[in-house]
Amino acid sequence: MNPKQTELTSIINGIQPVDTQWIEKAKDRTAQLVMPTRALGRLHELAERICGIQKTLTPSIDNKAILVMAGDHGAAKDGVSAYPQAVTGAMVQTFLSGGAGINAISRHVGADVWVVDMGIIPELDPDALGGEQQLLVRKIAKGTANLTKGPVMARDQAETAVLTGFEIASSLFAKGVDILGTGDMGIGNTTPSAAIGAVLTHTDLAQMVGRGTGVDDEGLAKKQDAVRQGIDINQPDSADGIDVLSKIGGFEIGGIAGCILAGAFHSRPVVIDGFISTAGALIAHTLCSTVTDYLFAGHRSEESGHQAMLAHLGLDPILDLGMRLGEGTGGALAMGIIGAAINIFTDVLTFQEAGVPDKADG
Amino acid sequence: MNPKQTELTSIINGIQPVDTQWIEKAKDRTAQLVMPTRALGRLHELAERICGIQKTLTPSIDNKAILVMAGDHGAAKDGVSAYPQAVTGAMVQTFLSGGAGINAISRHVGADVWVVDMGIIPELDPDALGGEQQLLVRKIAKGTANLTKGPVMARDQAETAVLTGFEIASSLFAKGVDILGTGDMGIGNTTPSAAIGAVLTHTDLAQMVGRGTGVDDEGLAKKQDAVRQGIDINQPDSADGIDVLSKIGGFEIGGIAGCILAGAFHSRPVVIDGFISTAGALIAHTLCSTVTDYLFAGHRSEESGHQAMLAHLGLDPILDLGMRLGEGTGGALAMGIIGAAINIFTDVLTFQEAGVPDKADG
Repeated sequence: MNPKQTELTSIINGIQPVDTQWIEKAKDRTAQLVMPTRALGRLHELAERICGIQKTLTPSIDNKAILVMAGDHGAAKDGVSAYPQAVTGAMVQTFLSGGAGINAISRHVGADVWVVDMGIIPELDPDALGGEQQLLVRKIAKGTANLTKGPVMARDQAETAVLTGFEIASSLFAKGVDILGTGDMGIGNTTPSAAIGAVLTHTDLAQMVGRGTGVDDEGLAKKQDAVRQGIDINQPDSADGIDVLSKIGGFEIGGIAGCILAGAFHSRPVVIDGFISTAGALIAHTLCSTVTDYLFAGHRSEESGHQAMLAHLGLDPILDLGMRLGEGTGGALAMGIIGAAINIFTDVLTFQEAGVPDKADG
Repeated sequence: MNPKQTELTSIINGIQPVDTQWIEKAKDRTAQLVMPTRALGRLHELAERICGIQKTLTPSIDNKAILVMAGDHGAAKDGVSAYPQAVTGAMVQTFLSGGAGINAISRHVGADVWVVDMGIIPELDPDALGGEQQLLVRKIAKGTANLTKGPVMARDQAETAVLTGFEIASSLFAKGVDILGTGDMGIGNTTPSAAIGAVLTHTDLAQMVGRGTGVDDEGLAKKQDAVRQGIDINQPDSADGIDVLSKIGGFEIGGIAGCILAGAFHSRPVVIDGFISTAGALIAHTLCSTVTDYLFAGHRSEESGHQAMLAHLGLDPILDLGMRLGEGTGGALAMGIIGAAINIFTDVLTFQEAGVPDKADG
């Protein structure tokens, strides 16, 4: 094995399932809260899983961060997106100015936003940009190759993408981040995400390929053709996440997969966003299926193939609001719900503390 | 007409539909935001409707309040609830101590909690309780009568309940509250709510009567019998909201209906919670169907009949998290989502401001 393979293997071997004993202890506390049994439904499950991940009955997600991974895509030149490729870099600058959707939602839930250049075409200078958000430049290449012509990146680059995401997320956790949301920016990136979804969930292309940023019928047909060609020409091995990533993926998708491995490795919760983040989760899950213990699906995207991805991962989305923006917006919004769930768990009195007669007393 | 009827008629006549011109202006702004067209789905609709209600393109819901209406129910003695009737008053005290579910969620979203004794059995002294929340005593009677034996209250009491809710909500709006959530407390109150739902939505009892706080099969059968008897013996007039409220309702349900009329009358958004709040909304809607212009359904309750109520009102719930607590918890949690929607609307740059190429430039 090369050193990167060795490092990835070591990470995967270091990932342990969530401790169910703490989840059971948390369920015992939920049962005592002054309300009918589990009357807040999924809010209880969310809080209990955080207790399991954090191995505590006093969970906290006060320190929140969103990592927006950005990359360009060779496929963008084939008319698979409603927007020109230059939008990727322009949106990265908008994230850094604080004026995009992810900035507004992150401020609302109290999360910091970090942006990573995993492989966009333009050269952006972090020092010249600044602002309230921060840019990390880890450019692997100036965009991927076109999946319809062959592999989008070398196998070594795919390993680098995953390890880069892992390292950046790990450094955020080391700085005290309690919960991480994954986000993406990359014009054309619903095309590789649909290809990954089709290969790893065995869902047909008609369901997996959607309109992304809003292509018309002609664009949708082009997209389906590109995904079909990309799979046919590359024959990705669905048992090998790095092979799939290198042949039909994207730099930011690999970075997201790395963030997800980091959450599981360091025992921290990760909230995934929509279609692209979930493609990253599928890659991570192929490398190590235990990662889903630490994953929360922020929302169900309007993108048609998303549900099949979530079902494959066994994740039930927290929100379902017809969103399809990406950037991490759905995950960030869901962090607010997870925060409420934790406040319920920690702040609500027990029947005994409140002096309220319980069911058994009736 | 008696003075109360005159006052109600005057309120109803004062309610105007939401100004669609402001909604259209808001949609124009949404179309310019630096993201694919309406890529945040329902978040755009939420913000645009607040713009219509507030007649502005700089909407704000900074000042949030939850009004928890409490009342006792004669039906509670028939074994229709899993909890003893004393829980109603005990939970009111828990709200005032800040230790209940609604307190935790309200703190999370930044909403004040007010509790109204609309007709609970115990006598609580507001001065002796205090705390961070406040109690308003507007006791109409010490609990309703049993719907299986005849009308649960006099017609005059039903009018008083609605006018009381209207007055209290109006005074909060006069103090600057931007958005109001309705909540409820009353052991046994899913029984009158199911009766109201069955009569006003013409849904059969098997679907409308659920397990409430968690009755077993025997309790569920008793509940269905109680609702059937209540409707058969009282023959409520589905065209007359006050008649329905007086025969098979509850004091807190009337208070909630009054809050909803106040929102529409003063042009302020009201977020309803689950099964009981929506029964209140059905009463308000029967009095004045325009109220739905100002209503937001916070969530879809786990209680089986709730969806039929929401469908009757034409409301699409914001959250769907298997919650069934009441107290206003689902509405309060949804206020966080509405707040995020407003931040998106007001804080995200336009394509032009951000200098990002739009679709037309591609």
